[in-house]
Amino acid sequence: MRLTPIPADKFTFGLWTVGNRGRDPFGEFVRPPLDPVRAVHRLAELGAWGVNFHDNDLVPIDATASDRDRIVRDFRKALDATGMTVPMATTNLFTDPVFKDGAFTSHDANVRAYALQKTMHAMDLGVELGARTYVFWGGREGAEVDAAKDPVEAIKRFRHAINFLCEYARDQKYGLRFALEAKPNEPRGDIYFATTASYLAFIPTLDYPDTVGVNPEVAHEQMAGLNFYHVVAQAIEAGKLFHIDLNDQKPGRFDQDLRFASESMKSLFFVVKLLEESGYDGPRHFDAHAYRTEDEQGVWDFACGCMRTYLILREKARQFRDHPGIQSLLSEIHEPGTGAEGAYSPERAGELKARSFDRQALASRRLPYERLDQMVVDLLLGV
Amino acid sequence: MRLTPIPADKFTFGLWTVGNRGRDPFGEFVRPPLDPVRAVHRLAELGAWGVNFHDNDLVPIDATASDRDRIVRDFRKALDATGMTVPMATTNLFTDPVFKDGAFTSHDANVRAYALQKTMHAMDLGVELGARTYVFWGGREGAEVDAAKDPVEAIKRFRHAINFLCEYARDQKYGLRFALEAKPNEPRGDIYFATTASYLAFIPTLDYPDTVGVNPEVAHEQMAGLNFYHVVAQAIEAGKLFHIDLNDQKPGRFDQDLRFASESMKSLFFVVKLLEESGYDGPRHFDAHAYRTEDEQGVWDFACGCMRTYLILREKARQFRDHPGIQSLLSEIHEPGTGAEGAYSPERAGELKARSFDRQALASRRLPYERLDQMVVDLLLGV
Amino acid sequence: MRLTPIPADKFTFGLWTVGNRGRDPFGEFVRPPLDPVRAVHRLAELGAWGVNFHDNDLVPIDATASDRDRIVRDFRKALDATGMTVPMATTNLFTDPVFKDGAFTSHDANVRAYALQKTMHAMDLGVELGARTYVFWGGREGAEVDAAKDPVEAIKRFRHAINFLCEYARDQKYGLRFALEAKPNEPRGDIYFATTASYLAFIPTLDYPDTVGVNPEVAHEQMAGLNFYHVVAQAIEAGKLFHIDLNDQKPGRFDQDLRFASESMKSLFFVVKLLEESGYDGPRHFDAHAYRTEDEQGVWDFACGCMRTYLILREKARQFRDHPGIQSLLSEIHEPGTGAEGAYSPERAGELKARSFDRQALASRRLPYERLDQMVVDLLLGV
Amino acid sequence: MRLTPIPADKFTFGLWTVGNRGRDPFGEFVRPPLDPVRAVHRLAELGAWGVNFHDNDLVPIDATASDRDRIVRDFRKALDATGMTVPMATTNLFTDPVFKDGAFTSHDANVRAYALQKTMHAMDLGVELGARTYVFWGGREGAEVDAAKDPVEAIKRFRHAINFLCEYARDQKYGLRFALEAKPNEPRGDIYFATTASYLAFIPTLDYPDTVGVNPEVAHEQMAGLNFYHVVAQAIEAGKLFHIDLNDQKPGRFDQDLRFASESMKSLFFVVKLLEESGYDGPRHFDAHAYRTEDEQGVWDFACGCMRTYLILREKARQFRDHPGIQSLLSEIHEPGTGAEGAYSPERAGELKARSFDRQALASRRLPYERLDQMVVDLLLGV
Repeated sequence: MRLTPIPADKFTFGLWTVGNRGRDPFGEFVRPPLDPVRAVHRLAELGAWGVNFHDNDLVPIDATASDRDRIVRDFRKALDATGMTVPMATTNLFTDPVFKDGAFTSHDANVRAYALQKTMHAMDLGVELGARTYVFWGGREGAEVDAAKDPVEAIKRFRHAINFLCEYARDQKYGLRFALEAKPNEPRGDIYFATTASYLAFIPTLDYPDTVGVNPEVAHEQMAGLNFYHVVAQAIEAGKLFHIDLNDQKPGRFDQDLRFASESMKSLFFVVKLLEESGYDGPRHFDAHAYRTEDEQGVWDFACGCMRTYLILREKARQFRDHPGIQSLLSEIHEPGTGAEGAYSPERAGELKARSFDRQALASRRLPYERLDQMVVDLLLGV
Repeated sequence: MRLTPIPADKFTFGLWTVGNRGRDPFGEFVRPPLDPVRAVHRLAELGAWGVNFHDNDLVPIDATASDRDRIVRDFRKALDATGMTVPMATTNLFTDPVFKDGAFTSHDANVRAYALQKTMHAMDLGVELGARTYVFWGGREGAEVDAAKDPVEAIKRFRHAINFLCEYARDQKYGLRFALEAKPNEPRGDIYFATTASYLAFIPTLDYPDTVGVNPEVAHEQMAGLNFYHVVAQAIEAGKLFHIDLNDQKPGRFDQDLRFASESMKSLFFVVKLLEESGYDGPRHFDAHAYRTEDEQGVWDFACGCMRTYLILREKARQFRDHPGIQSLLSEIHEPGTGAEGAYSPERAGELKARSFDRQALASRRLPYERLDQMVVDLLLGV
Repeated sequence: MRLTPIPADKFTFGLWTVGNRGRDPFGEFVRPPLDPVRAVHRLAELGAWGVNFHDNDLVPIDATASDRDRIVRDFRKALDATGMTVPMATTNLFTDPVFKDGAFTSHDANVRAYALQKTMHAMDLGVELGARTYVFWGGREGAEVDAAKDPVEAIKRFRHAINFLCEYARDQKYGLRFALEAKPNEPRGDIYFATTASYLAFIPTLDYPDTVGVNPEVAHEQMAGLNFYHVVAQAIEAGKLFHIDLNDQKPGRFDQDLRFASESMKSLFFVVKLLEESGYDGPRHFDAHAYRTEDEQGVWDFACGCMRTYLILREKARQFRDHPGIQSLLSEIHEPGTGAEGAYSPERAGELKARSFDRQALASRRLPYERLDQMVVDLLLGV
Repeated sequence: MRLTPIPADKFTFGLWTVGNRGRDPFGEFVRPPLDPVRAVHRLAELGAWGVNFHDNDLVPIDATASDRDRIVRDFRKALDATGMTVPMATTNLFTDPVFKDGAFTSHDANVRAYALQKTMHAMDLGVELGARTYVFWGGREGAEVDAAKDPVEAIKRFRHAINFLCEYARDQKYGLRFALEAKPNEPRGDIYFATTASYLAFIPTLDYPDTVGVNPEVAHEQMAGLNFYHVVAQAIEAGKLFHIDLNDQKPGRFDQDLRFASESMKSLFFVVKLLEESGYDGPRHFDAHAYRTEDEQGVWDFACGCMRTYLILREKARQFRDHPGIQSLLSEIHEPGTGAEGAYSPERAGELKARSFDRQALASRRLPYERLDQMVVDLLLGV
């Protein structure tokens, strides 16, 4: 079992994750700023494949053109030196007070226009540095006061923005795929498109649905108590898993962004298994950060831990596949009956309606799920 | 302000709601069975427009053909006598042990076949009694043990069933619309298609997407802490609000099915407002039940309370529209800027990228949401 | 119905509440600092009775002695000019990085010593300005990593600190009462003493239990989905409601600190009713803040709204008491049986064990709670 | 590592746990009744130490005296034959409709009297079969309608009942210890004494506080999102952990009663570690049940799984203690500073107030919690 990451594992980190400085609603920064160049070098040393960023993770919102050029040049040099990639980029549409009531869904058309402008520039920057996927997280697209905003109108405004930006990407021949990222609340009381499924439902209504998918995040779905494995499964079944944000979270509380699988080992084991077995070949992106109690060394411990636990769970997924006891139980459980498959025909409907079923016999079929689940627990606990 | 319901208000109740006998995981029945005929008469007296049912709310699962005929005859007589309608019907695919591990998503093809059969018969029954909408709630389509079931396969099985039944309805010229109802958990540890949005995402993948919509339920979304107003808004924006289940629920706990708006007055005020102003003209269906502490008289108190509070909130929605202070604030808030609308063109993108924005000026725009929200609180509290 | 607050209503605000500048985990400040002197004047004009503060709300952590003196002098002048009181003070033991892993429960005895020092100075400051109640909120007393800290040891450390500070207050003849404030999580993954009840259980183990009570906060209990009315009732029954933090919160999510009763109207109606009828004569303290979308004018709107809604609910509590329909139902519900009261005696136990009960008759007693609750809904909605 | 349970492990099961028949709010029984005699024999074969029961798990509520005698005789014979113990007993005060609005807190004094009677008889039965601990779970002591019941009065009624029953136990020289079990909701909308801490706070107000402790249950605290390890720690620190209910639960949803540690491996690892290291020598009681999809064989799989996972986690607790990397990190983390310990004296307070602290130096202390937590993850995953 190899537990040391290599680039082929496709592990990526946001600059904002290792660069997180530990400020929270009740406390100040505890760590100094982390130079993006340093982040690239350290992550490369640790075995990561790439880094991602919001525009302002790299280039401050008020940078001059020459600042920007210098920053990008230094950053590219670090990428070149390390072989690190930038598979994904995104826009910060939430930190600046201008977005206090939304970006693409703001009441103020000037703010919406500025959000489009900022995103086009950020797309230019991302593509310049190699990004193939562009993420949208609408952190301020929501409300505390439902009287103030019409959620139907908010959807239309968001659609307009995504359509506009799809056209821009096509026009520029950027070859980008877009990935929409949902969150139920925080920082807004309620955020529009609260779950990944909300975006899956939204995508078919776009002008270019084929180039738009989703970027589900563990913590965001678990905040609502949802089963993240099921969420990812629906995205995969729809052919829409374009990116994924791996971290961890206790349900029903503030956004924790914990080290990957540090809490939800069993649930995230199934997610890793699904990613590995489904043919998903995109980045394994960690969107989390070190505890506020850590210094910079702890940040790298955190990064190593994310990758290490992924590799452990990937190995356990292989063990699951090769486990005679588990596979034998699964065969027993999946033993097929007959009669439900096949396309509709009037004859088939008629036959089915007339058929006789022994409900009690069907109900008494043994489903040894306690035994199966205990085998999974044993496998996870390494017994 | 009329607070006495009339049929034109389109209030409906499930037979299972007023017929709920108060059993729960820790206690036995407290109320005797309620004859469906009596339910129809009492609800008609109280001003309801219709009743809905699962097949087995009306006809027991083990009824003989002649039992069935007698029951249906008596029930129709009650409908005729009272003028009550049956706008919606559905299938019970959860009570019998045969469905212990799912109906349409069961591993056992015989169970899946039986579920199709049972649903076709239930559709026949529903249509015979006038139903125009057919609801699917997959109460057992889920898992406690994610090792045992592949959630991708579960989606495919569910799709097969819905496609098959759409064909059946077309074949029979039933003119039915289907409405899919989501729930995150209970009775299963996790239910597939956990939220209304999951179904909105699923519908475009069906063979007959136009005839399939959703049936959002207040309690089911609030169990996951989601904003039900936003959920309904997305369904309406997608043209998919085919039915609605009105009740109430405290977030993050067991399914309570409380009297409509008895807890979430403010949130459900916005839902009523949206239903009334969006052109939704379907039933206002109450899917709730009386407290277990009640006897039959309390059941009718419960039913009256659901309708009464809806009418109160509808009236308050009118007051909102006519409230000079609220409308004046809304005008101030919605005052348009310029520059975000309009279709994409390379020129427009270029112009937008070059435009200069004063972020601080935009950020300093006043948004008097505390004042607006307090006006809503005043309006709700009748001050 | 008077809806304009007056000092006799005993409404108080923390300097940190109206002074909240709208920073959150995803966004920067949106409002400039608010001078405490201005806060006192504005709150006085609006009808408040007093202000409360953390030491560093008034005096920056790095202020010089002469800075401190000037600030205190100016602040006292504002109090004198307006007649405003300072009924409560508290210590900021969470903002500075020194407290990143706790104050009284830190592993580092130096940090614990500094926390004691800081609190003694803050008590001096609070008492100097008139405080009679001293609140402890241990915002950093918790953990993300349970391997790192022993929660049993944490309790002992916290007890040591409170005992020490009780002695200090006695020694100084400060006449202070202490009020402990619980919170389940945020900013820590889990905070020790997660609920008000945890502190109620802790108090009897202190050296001076009589001088220590609790300061329950709406949002903190509702984050855990608990019924705040029940929480306050237990504190009152125990004689331990020394202070209260009024605001609002949707359950199961980040700490929102919403305007009082802007969401949970029904639940907080019962809280107001309980406060008014229980003889609680302490401050009605609002620990909340304006939405991040607001400017300073919105802050005062927010403050007015908190007080206004309290007064509305207080009036409704009076209406409840005078409502013939409600009171008649309550009489019916509370009609006593006999046989459970009275002290134990062997004879009584023997008599009780031999007595014959008609379970079915007892079970069939009518409890018209749907009707009663609907009357409350009507009363709240002003119908 | 021994993973086969033996009686010295003190594993116990409620008759209601292995006897659970799989009924839920949406479905009927799936398993036939399980004879208590058979339960005793099977559990003994599997290595359990004892069984616990509610009165009506063993003796139906409407049994005749001779039925009772026969049942008890047969049950005792099974205990004698197997060497199984009955360490704990309790009363069913929730299933029968007579308790629909509470038992000890009912408005109806006759119901309260009947609840006392039923409990005295159940105590007699429990003691007759060897019980040393008597549990109280007030499943119906709560409300959906806060207008109907005064929560202050409810506490007083509950206190009266516990005091009365303490006297009865003393009078009978039963030598029983009482253990109070909390739950936040379900089956009631809100249950009084919502958390274990509520009971810890209540106990000091009783007439015989020394004989009353708590019985915390994993699922009940996790329903409210609380950290169960912290809950148990407070109970232990207070000397009040008289019994414990081990199972598992996903937060923020209906009461799942899952197989022990099948979800919350990390959190329950710390609980096992705490139980083993704290000197707790009471039963390790599993209050859970098999999935509804199981037949009787699955029930025994479930029971084996509970015990097996406990033993695995116990072994991992030993490994934690012997793990050089973990212990070395803990030494580093716990390295003491000075200056916070010791009793209060005016001199000490004066010295402390005058002392100079270097906040930045203290804040910069390294706390390698990411590394430590990853070591725990590795240990749990068996790497």
